[in-house]
Amino acid sequence: MPCGFLNVMVFECLARDGHARRGQMKFPRGTVDTPAFMPVGTYGAVKGLDAADLRMSGSRMVLGNTLHLALRPGIDVISRFGGLHAFIGWEGPILTDSGGFQVMSLGALRTIDEEGVTFRAPVDGRLFRLTPERAIAIQEALGSDVCMVLDHCPPYPASPEEIERSLARSILWAERSRRAHEREEQALFGIVQGGVDIPSRLRAFETLEPMGFSGFAIGGLAVGEPAPARLAILDALKTVLPQDRPRYLMGVGKPADLVTAVLRGIDLFDCVLPTRNGRNAHLFTSQGVLRLRNARYRTDERPIDPDCPCPACQRLSRAYLHHLDRVGDPLTLRLLSLHTLTYYQTLLARLRTAIEAGRLAPVAQEILALEGDGEAVR
Amino acid sequence: MPCGFLNVMVFECLARDGHARRGQMKFPRGTVDTPAFMPVGTYGAVKGLDAADLRMSGSRMVLGNTLHLALRPGIDVISRFGGLHAFIGWEGPILTDSGGFQVMSLGALRTIDEEGVTFRAPVDGRLFRLTPERAIAIQEALGSDVCMVLDHCPPYPASPEEIERSLARSILWAERSRRAHEREEQALFGIVQGGVDIPSRLRAFETLEPMGFSGFAIGGLAVGEPAPARLAILDALKTVLPQDRPRYLMGVGKPADLVTAVLRGIDLFDCVLPTRNGRNAHLFTSQGVLRLRNARYRTDERPIDPDCPCPACQRLSRAYLHHLDRVGDPLTLRLLSLHTLTYYQTLLARLRTAIEAGRLAPVAQEILALEGDGEAVR
Repeated sequence: MPCGFLNVMVFECLARDGHARRGQMKFPRGTVDTPAFMPVGTYGAVKGLDAADLRMSGSRMVLGNTLHLALRPGIDVISRFGGLHAFIGWEGPILTDSGGFQVMSLGALRTIDEEGVTFRAPVDGRLFRLTPERAIAIQEALGSDVCMVLDHCPPYPASPEEIERSLARSILWAERSRRAHEREEQALFGIVQGGVDIPSRLRAFETLEPMGFSGFAIGGLAVGEPAPARLAILDALKTVLPQDRPRYLMGVGKPADLVTAVLRGIDLFDCVLPTRNGRNAHLFTSQGVLRLRNARYRTDERPIDPDCPCPACQRLSRAYLHHLDRVGDPLTLRLLSLHTLTYYQTLLARLRTAIEAGRLAPVAQEILALEGDGEAVR
Repeated sequence: MPCGFLNVMVFECLARDGHARRGQMKFPRGTVDTPAFMPVGTYGAVKGLDAADLRMSGSRMVLGNTLHLALRPGIDVISRFGGLHAFIGWEGPILTDSGGFQVMSLGALRTIDEEGVTFRAPVDGRLFRLTPERAIAIQEALGSDVCMVLDHCPPYPASPEEIERSLARSILWAERSRRAHEREEQALFGIVQGGVDIPSRLRAFETLEPMGFSGFAIGGLAVGEPAPARLAILDALKTVLPQDRPRYLMGVGKPADLVTAVLRGIDLFDCVLPTRNGRNAHLFTSQGVLRLRNARYRTDERPIDPDCPCPACQRLSRAYLHHLDRVGDPLTLRLLSLHTLTYYQTLLARLRTAIEAGRLAPVAQEILALEGDGEAVR
């Protein structure tokens, strides 16, 4: 799996279908077929799943939350292991965020200035300072394969002034992150901010472009904005983002959101949704959403999804999993998260095949037709 | 694995060392090497572990709690699947208890008469009646490979009158269970009661013996009595229990308890301890007890137990598992339960090998020297 001759990420686009791209991100630690979905291992684990589970689900790259890991267990601990891979026992590629998004969500607990952000750690009240240089230093210590610049993500809704101010800061911080970044084997991605304002987004990209990032993330979406506003941003950016570098839509999303973003040229996703929904027994399936807590499943002998290769669908019934959820067995969390993550990875594989075959439009239509929060499975 | 020619359990004693026995319980669903330990799958799952985990731990037979399963999901559900094996996806042998022990622990919620026990289900307040005939009928519907007679387990301490009364009832119920039992492919075990009174225990066995059970359980221990009282019972029974049938010590215990019981001829155990202790990060290891929540493990790069073949010990550090426990990741429950169960199964395998080699005494000494609730690992 590891490409021995690589000492840095290489992105290759293998096929196109409209704006959609079928590519590969090649790392010394392995190749990631794109479009790809990264499960979120906030504290160095994707809740309830181990490395073997993640591999089994089809996941090839995971995300680690820099800020969470810096607070617990602390960088001193992870450094002793030579980095996050060895600490958590995951041999594949890892992307770390910069901590910017998490800091913003602390609200009243943080103060922000031009230099960086100061906040009280929710865990123990410790005062913590995050600057672009510190965000990069932590990610270098974590040794992730892709690290992210520190950014300032405005809330939604935000006034034009707020968007403008946070964007100026994001650009300044991107430049400082770029200068601070020294580990050449680690790819560094810039983050395009600018709220739901298309001109701001375009300006953000134009300013970041000459800084020489290995890839571009689109941040500050999936924070409550209406779907058409998000799609308008993706539509505006799809023709300007460079073809030769990966495009990462941060924090997205539901299966339909992935499909609409892939249609607009996105290569990489992360989201807590599959594992969170899995834990809540809200299950995506090839026939639509299945809410396993519904009493109708008490005696249902069928698997959750006959088309799914996950261990639960291969061996167990809806009735047994409904029962396990009802008695609160922790096995439920694992099996249902593993199912949902497997569903996501199977979906992405299907999109990749469709792009290769030039059949993305009809395949996307089929998947979008499943969407809806109502009970869809009969 | 399945022995196609068998249609009922066969017990074979392969070697002896003092009173200790190395044997095999052969079932149509597979062979169980004895002395053996069964993890407890109360509601049809060993909390947090799936069938693949159980196999990986070295477990070959599991216990299901009849009463819990009858209440949730209910026998109607399990019957649709043709029994417990298909419902929970476990292909190996299963032993079910009779529900007697669980009913006794309900205290004020139950009333007992000569015919049986009536109680309110703690889950939903439903009135439920358990008689010897009903306990057998439920176990026949569950389709377990070994089922147990309904017994009346006296509390500890109990007056001589209480012991006498519960023993008389246990014998009556054993006889009625025997008569009610129709599925010949299912082994039926009698349960020797009698509190900590040796003459009562001997009389219990003598009365049960002619009833023709396939094995004998020793019930009513591990309910708070001092260890010497328990060992005295095992010493009194070790020479009278028939050599050609398995001996099952119910609800025991800690590693040292298993060793002292194996020395006294016990072949089969069940206990929630390994999985419960695992969940509480109280870990048995080949070097003694390790309490993983101790802050000293925050930076410890070693595995929990270098001699353990479980996935956590093969791939992960004490520091990472300490961290996962601290952040409350549900993965911890699984990995630590799997470790502790693997420790138990490795211990039993070691005892079996020692019996074969006629070296049980020194091996038992080594294991007993590890005992103690204090932190033993350096």
